Amino acid sequence: MRASKFLIATVKETPSDAEVISHQLMLRAGLIRKLAAGLYTWLPMGLRVLRKVEAVVREEMNNAGSQEVSMPVVQPAELWQESGRWHEYGAELLRIRDRHQRDFCLGPTHEEVITDLVRNEIKSYKQLPCSFYQIQTKFRDEIRPRFGIMRAREFLMKDAYSFHLNQESLQQTYEEMHAAYTQIFTRLGLDFRPVIADSGSIGGNASQEFHVLADSGEDAIAFSDSSDYAANIEMAEALAPASEAPAAAEAMTEVATPNAHTIEEVCAQLQLAAEQTLKTLIVKGDSEEQPLIALTVRGDHQLNELKAEKLDGVAAPLEFAEEAAIVAATACGTGSLGPVNLNLPCYTDRSAACLSDFTCGANRDGFHLRGVNWSRDASVGKVADIRNVEAGDPSPDGNGTLVIKRGIEVGHIFQLGKKYSQALNAQVLNEQGKTETVSMGCYGIGVSRVVAAAIEQNHDDNGIIWPAGIAPFQIAIVPLNMHKSEAVASCAEKLYAELSAAGIEVLLDDRNERPGVKFADMELIGIPHRVVIGDRALAEQKIEYKGRRDSEPTLVDQTAILSFLTERLNA
Amino acid sequence: MRASKFLIATVKETPSDAEVISHQLMLRAGLIRKLAAGLYTWLPMGLRVLRKVEAVVREEMNNAGSQEVSMPVVQPAELWQESGRWHEYGAELLRIRDRHQRDFCLGPTHEEVITDLVRNEIKSYKQLPCSFYQIQTKFRDEIRPRFGIMRAREFLMKDAYSFHLNQESLQQTYEEMHAAYTQIFTRLGLDFRPVIADSGSIGGNASQEFHVLADSGEDAIAFSDSSDYAANIEMAEALAPASEAPAAAEAMTEVATPNAHTIEEVCAQLQLAAEQTLKTLIVKGDSEEQPLIALTVRGDHQLNELKAEKLDGVAAPLEFAEEAAIVAATACGTGSLGPVNLNLPCYTDRSAACLSDFTCGANRDGFHLRGVNWSRDASVGKVADIRNVEAGDPSPDGNGTLVIKRGIEVGHIFQLGKKYSQALNAQVLNEQGKTETVSMGCYGIGVSRVVAAAIEQNHDDNGIIWPAGIAPFQIAIVPLNMHKSEAVASCAEKLYAELSAAGIEVLLDDRNERPGVKFADMELIGIPHRVVIGDRALAEQKIEYKGRRDSEPTLVDQTAILSFLTERLNA
Repeated sequence: MRASKFLIATVKETPSDAEVISHQLMLRAGLIRKLAAGLYTWLPMGLRVLRKVEAVVREEMNNAGSQEVSMPVVQPAELWQESGRWHEYGAELLRIRDRHQRDFCLGPTHEEVITDLVRNEIKSYKQLPCSFYQIQTKFRDEIRPRFGIMRAREFLMKDAYSFHLNQESLQQTYEEMHAAYTQIFTRLGLDFRPVIADSGSIGGNASQEFHVLADSGEDAIAFSDSSDYAANIEMAEALAPASEAPAAAEAMTEVATPNAHTIEEVCAQLQLAAEQTLKTLIVKGDSEEQPLIALTVRGDHQLNELKAEKLDGVAAPLEFAEEAAIVAATACGTGSLGPVNLNLPCYTDRSAACLSDFTCGANRDGFHLRGVNWSRDASVGKVADIRNVEAGDPSPDGNGTLVIKRGIEVGHIFQLGKKYSQALNAQVLNEQGKTETVSMGCYGIGVSRVVAAAIEQNHDDNGIIWPAGIAPFQIAIVPLNMHKSEAVASCAEKLYAELSAAGIEVLLDDRNERPGVKFADMELIGIPHRVVIGDRALAEQKIEYKGRRDSEPTLVDQTAILSFLTERLNA
Repeated sequence: MRASKFLIATVKETPSDAEVISHQLMLRAGLIRKLAAGLYTWLPMGLRVLRKVEAVVREEMNNAGSQEVSMPVVQPAELWQESGRWHEYGAELLRIRDRHQRDFCLGPTHEEVITDLVRNEIKSYKQLPCSFYQIQTKFRDEIRPRFGIMRAREFLMKDAYSFHLNQESLQQTYEEMHAAYTQIFTRLGLDFRPVIADSGSIGGNASQEFHVLADSGEDAIAFSDSSDYAANIEMAEALAPASEAPAAAEAMTEVATPNAHTIEEVCAQLQLAAEQTLKTLIVKGDSEEQPLIALTVRGDHQLNELKAEKLDGVAAPLEFAEEAAIVAATACGTGSLGPVNLNLPCYTDRSAACLSDFTCGANRDGFHLRGVNWSRDASVGKVADIRNVEAGDPSPDGNGTLVIKRGIEVGHIFQLGKKYSQALNAQVLNEQGKTETVSMGCYGIGVSRVVAAAIEQNHDDNGIIWPAGIAPFQIAIVPLNMHKSEAVASCAEKLYAELSAAGIEVLLDDRNERPGVKFADMELIGIPHRVVIGDRALAEQKIEYKGRRDSEPTLVDQTAILSFLTERLNA
């Protein structure tokens, strides 16, 4: 491709409304343009990348035996009413009316449509298992679209759905999809982790997310340094400490802690380490008999709300008690709470339960207790895992210790079970000739999001650094002074023709721009390999090469340039 | 592909709500399924065809130097307000509101969005000409969606837009697009014609439609038997007859024509040929001074409303006068009108003006006049081309005579001029450094419609007959009794493996179905080449081959089958 025939829409300034690096670089490199909040046009340069991601996803889905279909973007309300989601789904579901005043929605996902198709087309267990996928524009009316295409309203998604006679078959396809996803993200050249995830409101049994690791990721992921264990931090189990609580050595004494309301303030006043303290949090119960419940974790640990809301008696979603209710129940404010003589049902975190001689609130404003010990001074209540794991914790699978990294969710695989098939009555005849409700799995990849995630993971101060598999072009040829030097022009044209003939995607920067502009643009756009052709080097039969991650260029013999580039491309 | 792993969703019965053959066959062959009125899911078999059409379109658009982009389906109202179409466009534009009560629409077309992009990104004449295209889901809220995907509400369209400094450049790109379209429809294996079209409400200067010829087509196309002239019948000029009206030979006489109100009835009563009669139609004028205008055409000719509404003084769009108004003005009903003593301004068609001794209404109910002659008996008024051309008319380009065929519009190319660029203020700096409004062209192909049109043109009583370039599979292998005969199974598997390895798309019908079912399905689906492997032929080292259009199968030596098939595929 000649740059003169291609929209190079690079921008020097960082757009003020772009918060994350991928959004900034996608705008600056001319990959996308904003049309309205959460709506983006893919420019030619960006679309080349998107199409490559799409092609890899399609190939691997086909390899996994999934059949491609294409379902409408606009879906009739009736199906969503049948599944119950017309009312359950929030305002992200954009509901519309056609000219005949019939209700429709813009599809944020296609469980209903595919289940409707399958209940009509698949009648026998002999046709199972089967799976269908599409790569399609989806719409979610995000309340606050941001981060560019990372959280856009209109986006490109691969959604797949599988159907099964039983759980074993679902489990098998789920594992095949896991393998396909691993293959996809590997081919895309991304550093990623499949992580155990919460299946949340979609329901079902098992679910895993695929995360691209990047410091800017929204999600924290815990993974083992010695095994392939990885889980969303919300889901990672914090194991009970191996050792029991040491025997009590101190007597319990009350100390004044004026104006110290947080663990940090108490530790500073009393010259304590946070891990020798206990934090007491009061949350709402789920019944009138138990309106308040106490949760205690070690002072240096964080409560995991997802774990907490699953506890017996605790309201879900988790709600912290109001200050007034706490004072009414304990005669003390939140700054000085503790388990000693606390007249509330209590859950104690596994690690907190192993403390001895610890410090906690005295249930008297402005005072704390030191040398507290479970049993002797306070009831430990029920012991449970209610905290977030931390770096250095033992891995829940028993292998190694946990490392915490940040990730961007780009894929999600679910075992849905019978949630939709039951609601929509998707049944087949089994081997005995009896009707049976099918089991379902669903498998998504945020195709457009992958592009942003790849940038979050691969960039430097000069711009994007594309993994080879999704670069818009593999090689940029930058001729210097091409419009004046015939030697440069003919060398550049020859190399361009040769590389193109070999099926390599080359961008020949034949624009009438200064070298500095061309260099900056090609780095910003992130083309993996750059060849500079100039009179000075040509005089010595040399051509300059620079890989996008190289710090310095290399001079290559003009005669060897083709083989040199081929070698680099295959590296 | 193994049929056992692929959704073969054939249906025996012709669906009752499918009026046209392509709709019937697409449902019966399991290419599509209806989700709601005008909304269809593409099943795996249909999607394979659609993707092939899409791929050919993409390749040729790229070859034509157009750059692929992807614009949002959901578009903000502001842009449509800027162009004026928010109010002009009828109910086909589906207007929606997001959760913040902001107005949007589902894009039926993207002139506004691309013009907005270009006004922001293209600043200099040096970047012109340029053209952008996308292959994208569009939505038009048809009042009565029908004919399956032929007139669906959601459909796949290729829309391209070009931008130019001047008309010459627009003309050149327009011609290049014409060539690209010709290439596309040729590669798709379709019998098509580019025809001169009305540019209608989109405006602009020149426009051509590309029609796939099929007896079931909605549009009538006139084309020359000796040149490449072709025009939508609405647009084809009816030339004036070469000869003048013969001299008057008869005297004008009034005859009773009781209960004869139509040309047919009059001709039957008076034993006349329709071409010796004159039909008088009264339409509304565009001013109070001339509320009614008479139009006369030969009895055997049809008024062309598009031509008529362009006449001076005639209301556009054309409206026929009410009976009461006609009686008030002529003292006669519509069944007996004629030009003699008619006190209305009159346009006479070129052919009608060459009549002599003709018959027309007497402006007296129940009576006609015979032997009427222009000038002597009635004023000819203004002579104009106001009729549809007919088969046998001379071609307007002076070469040969016209043939009328029916067509399905699958593409349309327009010279838009400055309609959108002016409204949206899309300007560039010209060579003199002055701002200039750009000129635009737009170029559409109904990608999903092409699939239906291909079927309308290529089918027989047994089903679809795909052109090779868009067949879902090239070859069907039908093994007989495969699950019992090891010889059949191994021969079929071997051939399947060999053909697949050669990159040929083969469907191996390994379903446990009766031969008759398999044969019927493969013919219905329309796979171009069918190979039948059975024990009886195998005993003589033979394999049966049948091309989809062949009336009888051919027996081929087992050892020669690969080269035989290769030859057929390349034929």
